[in-house]
Amino acid sequence: MHELDFSATLLARQQRLAQNLSANSLDHAVINPGPTLTYLTGLSFHLMERPVVAFFSAGGQPALVLPELETAKLSGLPGDFHPFAYGEDPAAWLAVFRKAAEFAGLDGSVVGVEPARLRFLELSYLQDAAPTARFVSAAQPLADLRICKDAQEIDAMRRAVQIAQQALQAVLPMIGPGVTERQVASELVIQLFRAGSQTELPFAPIVASGPNSANPHAVPSNRPLQTGDLLVIDWGASADGYISDLTRTFAIGGASPEYQRVAKLVKQANQSGRDAAGPGVPAEAVDWAARRLIAEAGYGEYFTHRTGHGIGMEGHEEPYIREGNRLILQSGMAFTVEPGIYLPGRGGVRIEDNVVVTATGAECLSDLPRELIVLG
Amino acid sequence: MHELDFSATLLARQQRLAQNLSANSLDHAVINPGPTLTYLTGLSFHLMERPVVAFFSAGGQPALVLPELETAKLSGLPGDFHPFAYGEDPAAWLAVFRKAAEFAGLDGSVVGVEPARLRFLELSYLQDAAPTARFVSAAQPLADLRICKDAQEIDAMRRAVQIAQQALQAVLPMIGPGVTERQVASELVIQLFRAGSQTELPFAPIVASGPNSANPHAVPSNRPLQTGDLLVIDWGASADGYISDLTRTFAIGGASPEYQRVAKLVKQANQSGRDAAGPGVPAEAVDWAARRLIAEAGYGEYFTHRTGHGIGMEGHEEPYIREGNRLILQSGMAFTVEPGIYLPGRGGVRIEDNVVVTATGAECLSDLPRELIVLG
Repeated sequence: MHELDFSATLLARQQRLAQNLSANSLDHAVINPGPTLTYLTGLSFHLMERPVVAFFSAGGQPALVLPELETAKLSGLPGDFHPFAYGEDPAAWLAVFRKAAEFAGLDGSVVGVEPARLRFLELSYLQDAAPTARFVSAAQPLADLRICKDAQEIDAMRRAVQIAQQALQAVLPMIGPGVTERQVASELVIQLFRAGSQTELPFAPIVASGPNSANPHAVPSNRPLQTGDLLVIDWGASADGYISDLTRTFAIGGASPEYQRVAKLVKQANQSGRDAAGPGVPAEAVDWAARRLIAEAGYGEYFTHRTGHGIGMEGHEEPYIREGNRLILQSGMAFTVEPGIYLPGRGGVRIEDNVVVTATGAECLSDLPRELIVLG
Repeated sequence: MHELDFSATLLARQQRLAQNLSANSLDHAVINPGPTLTYLTGLSFHLMERPVVAFFSAGGQPALVLPELETAKLSGLPGDFHPFAYGEDPAAWLAVFRKAAEFAGLDGSVVGVEPARLRFLELSYLQDAAPTARFVSAAQPLADLRICKDAQEIDAMRRAVQIAQQALQAVLPMIGPGVTERQVASELVIQLFRAGSQTELPFAPIVASGPNSANPHAVPSNRPLQTGDLLVIDWGASADGYISDLTRTFAIGGASPEYQRVAKLVKQANQSGRDAAGPGVPAEAVDWAARRLIAEAGYGEYFTHRTGHGIGMEGHEEPYIREGNRLILQSGMAFTVEPGIYLPGRGGVRIEDNVVVTATGAECLSDLPRELIVLG
């Protein structure tokens, strides 16, 4: 895509944000570094001790508070941003926030923020700079902004899935008894980069063996794999700012009949969830399609998390595939389908794929085998 | 170190926190996932859409609000934490926060938070759960808690430096005209893992060439290196939860006399800053020792950032080595010394080392050559 075209895409996104703000009775949105800011501006800033905040209005000109040493990035900004740069002494930052808040007309207005991004740090400056502004969650209008992916975004996600799959396949030959979780995780990260992932991975891979695999969010340890273990690998890649997030489960040296039964059940639940996805379907119906099979087989209490989460620039975004979420799926929405069964103290199985809703159904971006493959 | 010993270390840290809270007239601290929570509990949680908050009191029992699917981690918690777990439906989370806030006695008290960590998400739940509590920044008592590193922490930082240095040396042979910044960055990440870095890097390496090197926070691009370029590489590793953060600058194919002069000047400024570090010295004196040389040579306006930042579990923590910071350095404090000169539109030079204050002076953990080495 030409730079000019992408600049037009960014400006259109800023315009959609302005509409979403109006529709939600918000006068402004203040956005700090993270995927939403990148989505709107194409720029990446680190989230650190120096606050960076962009001001978007339903009407006026956007503004940006940033450190002086980041101003080189301004030349890449689409739209007519008014910059407010500050130096290295924090004592002078509030005055810069005040100027920006005055320019944007924050005082007395309703200002939407991103609850999972905006920190006490930025909020304190903003409240001091605009004491009569009311800061409220803009989670919904901001999620709406990014929830339907366009063809270019889906292409990037497809590349991120391909990179992740290629990396896992390169790692499988080393897996067997005696190798530690951490060794597998390190090699997987190396192979993710060899396969072309961006250097900022969406998350550190989970490599969880034996009893550790019963913890859905285990951190790779120095535990050596043992014959009879289940091994859960949950990993993803980044490509052009979009991510993949996959899980496969393996058996080390062989699997007990119970583990085989559980693995088959999770595979069926994964299939059932993916089959249920499509335009016009409520998110909770996908959850239920996967959960029902597991519950009916008597393992309901061991499927301890929702069936999936949205995926795109982040690994955790809307739509959440969980009980009670009546959001109607639409073409372009992308999410994981990742049922699991976790037997406390023994082992777990999870199978996770990445799915995009299409005009007529859903496309699964990932296609690695879902059988319980025996390694080592 | 034995697990029991480490558990004792963690409990001692929790006790120091309680003392710091009392000394700062704070009744409680609420800490969400990040280095401080790990420092206090040994546990890692992901910062995501499901809030996790630990409550520490100057007096009472600690508490922890967390998702049910993370409760497997509770068995590793040192100290007598009271857990408050919630399920997948966000509508039920506030009630759990209320119970935890009531248990901790938050209402009517002064509650310290970590401004660069706590988000609008957690703050909103906390304010709703304890409407008469006053939430204030506990940045200083929390920074004080972690600012002096013990021998074990310094050992981890030393390993993180060694891993980083080994990785860079493995990458140098590939660097030359035609190779892109992104290719160098990818290979550097691979070599960081080969050398033994933990899978969560402290930051994505900066590989900035030619005009990009004049931007201190450039993101690796597809720009191929060209003869005559300056090349800034800013990278780091993680070991046992501690990080390194180094920078070296190279010349591609040769360097103009001006670039050679600038590189020599930055090397002298780096040396001067490191020489100035020691116990009893104000942080700003280290900044000035480095800055003075650059300013006197007429490049003051092109050294656009502070001389350094604290380093430990994070890349950005206290002590900040900047003008106006009168903090007196003490044994165990660790920070970067990273003067730079950035010639807009042309190129930049930065040389960054990691330094720890000792009883008698300062130890530099990094020792890669600081000359402007010609590559390719």
